[in-house]
Amino acid sequence: MHIDELPTPALVVDRDVLEANIALMGQRWPGRSLRPHVKAFKSVSMARRLAELGHDSFCAATIKELAGLAAGGLGGDLLLANETVDLQRLKTLLTEHQDARITVAVDSPETVSVAAQAGIKEVLIDVNVGMPRCGCAPEDAGPLGDLVRSTGMTVRGVMGYEGHLMTESTDQGEKVEEAMGLLLKAHDAVGGEVISGGGTGTWRTNQWVNELQAGSFTLMDTDYEASGTGFSKALSLRCTIISVNRKGGWAVADGGTKALGLDHGLPSIDDGEVLYCSDEHTIFAMKDAVALPKVGERISLWPSHVDPTVSQHDNLWLCDGNEVVDRWAVDLRGW
Amino acid sequence: MHIDELPTPALVVDRDVLEANIALMGQRWPGRSLRPHVKAFKSVSMARRLAELGHDSFCAATIKELAGLAAGGLGGDLLLANETVDLQRLKTLLTEHQDARITVAVDSPETVSVAAQAGIKEVLIDVNVGMPRCGCAPEDAGPLGDLVRSTGMTVRGVMGYEGHLMTESTDQGEKVEEAMGLLLKAHDAVGGEVISGGGTGTWRTNQWVNELQAGSFTLMDTDYEASGTGFSKALSLRCTIISVNRKGGWAVADGGTKALGLDHGLPSIDDGEVLYCSDEHTIFAMKDAVALPKVGERISLWPSHVDPTVSQHDNLWLCDGNEVVDRWAVDLRGW
Repeated sequence: MHIDELPTPALVVDRDVLEANIALMGQRWPGRSLRPHVKAFKSVSMARRLAELGHDSFCAATIKELAGLAAGGLGGDLLLANETVDLQRLKTLLTEHQDARITVAVDSPETVSVAAQAGIKEVLIDVNVGMPRCGCAPEDAGPLGDLVRSTGMTVRGVMGYEGHLMTESTDQGEKVEEAMGLLLKAHDAVGGEVISGGGTGTWRTNQWVNELQAGSFTLMDTDYEASGTGFSKALSLRCTIISVNRKGGWAVADGGTKALGLDHGLPSIDDGEVLYCSDEHTIFAMKDAVALPKVGERISLWPSHVDPTVSQHDNLWLCDGNEVVDRWAVDLRGW
Repeated sequence: MHIDELPTPALVVDRDVLEANIALMGQRWPGRSLRPHVKAFKSVSMARRLAELGHDSFCAATIKELAGLAAGGLGGDLLLANETVDLQRLKTLLTEHQDARITVAVDSPETVSVAAQAGIKEVLIDVNVGMPRCGCAPEDAGPLGDLVRSTGMTVRGVMGYEGHLMTESTDQGEKVEEAMGLLLKAHDAVGGEVISGGGTGTWRTNQWVNELQAGSFTLMDTDYEASGTGFSKALSLRCTIISVNRKGGWAVADGGTKALGLDHGLPSIDDGEVLYCSDEHTIFAMKDAVALPKVGERISLWPSHVDPTVSQHDNLWLCDGNEVVDRWAVDLRGW
């Protein structure tokens, strides 16, 4: 099928760029030193491709993502890199996927208690390394590890996400070192083999974790590209032009806020400027001397944030140039 | 089921508030003078409830929404209040729902041509009334109507969406009158019975259309509430607290940008302030003297924009107080 036969709006993945991104990441983080974060792409098919290349341990942000990976035969080493107190869903996950190895992050007595009640066997202590979100204080990691062990669960180690530094442009290396210093201090107190953290934005500067939690590097977005990660944009939203106002100087594409995550800004368009997005539309102008497209023509928008863009779609369409070569279901969305 | 038994994040609808919103709208726009816009709630069940109350003609932004309404037995008078050049999907829609009355908006020779080729019988001329998006220039409406008739299709009238005035706080009435003046001028040239337009934000000030295209009034959001529409917020995102940092003064709820449309701003929380949202989290502080919640407790977030919030969910959970009384599938999402 030709790319222009896809119903729009459609999320298109350039397979060559995707493969190059994965290969580049694999040079620095080979095999299981990379723990791909499925929250970015929410697709078992994508996870399977990563597993084929040796990256067969995964992390996830939701129990549903874990369940989907396990159901897809990818349950060898799964980490819920997020907190949960949902006893029922955790129990169901373990009951339905008894062969999967499932580790969960904990950062409080409550999350430890729920994990133990659910029958979880292994945890990581989630440590706050500077981003105001989850994670215990570094000094609380040791006692929390002791609490975990008192319940009979095993502490595999620690995780800490320096999310506040992902697109840091000034002295990123030093700031990551400082954040990871907190994680290593916690690890000293906690023990275990795993020091997990990092992401697409710190894949080159984080030298302290022994497994990198990255997902966005696969598909990429304009936000990560602008911060100089070295990966290339593989993901675009293919749209059809449904209206053109030549007097006003704008055109309207048939994908908007319901097809694009906008929390990192508007999408981009080559040779033009996106003026705004509404629910089902993106309105854009072209640069001087570049003609507006015609009604019925197709254009590509570059999303600013991969995760909340992909999660609004049912499919990723893999393309070699203009040829659609595969459909990967976005089968891990929702809760 | 008690509301606290819902897996989170969950979109919760206060049924009493919903019913009051619909009743209030129905006083000003009874029966078919209201053409509910399903893009806001994407649920056949919600549409069915509106139809029970006499509002049984609908408008939609996507062909998928039309197909879902028709399949749900609500095809009496459906309007695609948006442009399309997707001949294949339009043909399929007509083939699969031959009993439905389907009208589409057109604003260009290309959209007229596709409608005619697909076998569409009736159209509205979509007129630009000041918002930089779709719609032909008012002076082009007459010739476009002639073009439509030359293909054998019927022109039912005009539509024009004054979207740029929905939350206008200064002299909204005069500005709407000016915008609707353009629509009426176009209608003079086009003819037909229908003058369609307006929305939740102009339901009191728009006195010129004979059918109002409104959808957000049902569920509402903080953006429309702040602009003084008179409707009340029926929709909230129910979340569980998964982490609390008492020293830092924040708590973390388990729903973020993948559960909330943020293009109209952050969600709100009673007695507190949302600091930011990330993909799966909303981080918030409480006002002075209000204690942070505990891990495992539940809170409600008020979305800022209903449409791209609902479209990220599979279900709306209807509640009477704390009792979950119904589940309405969000079955019109996607494309």
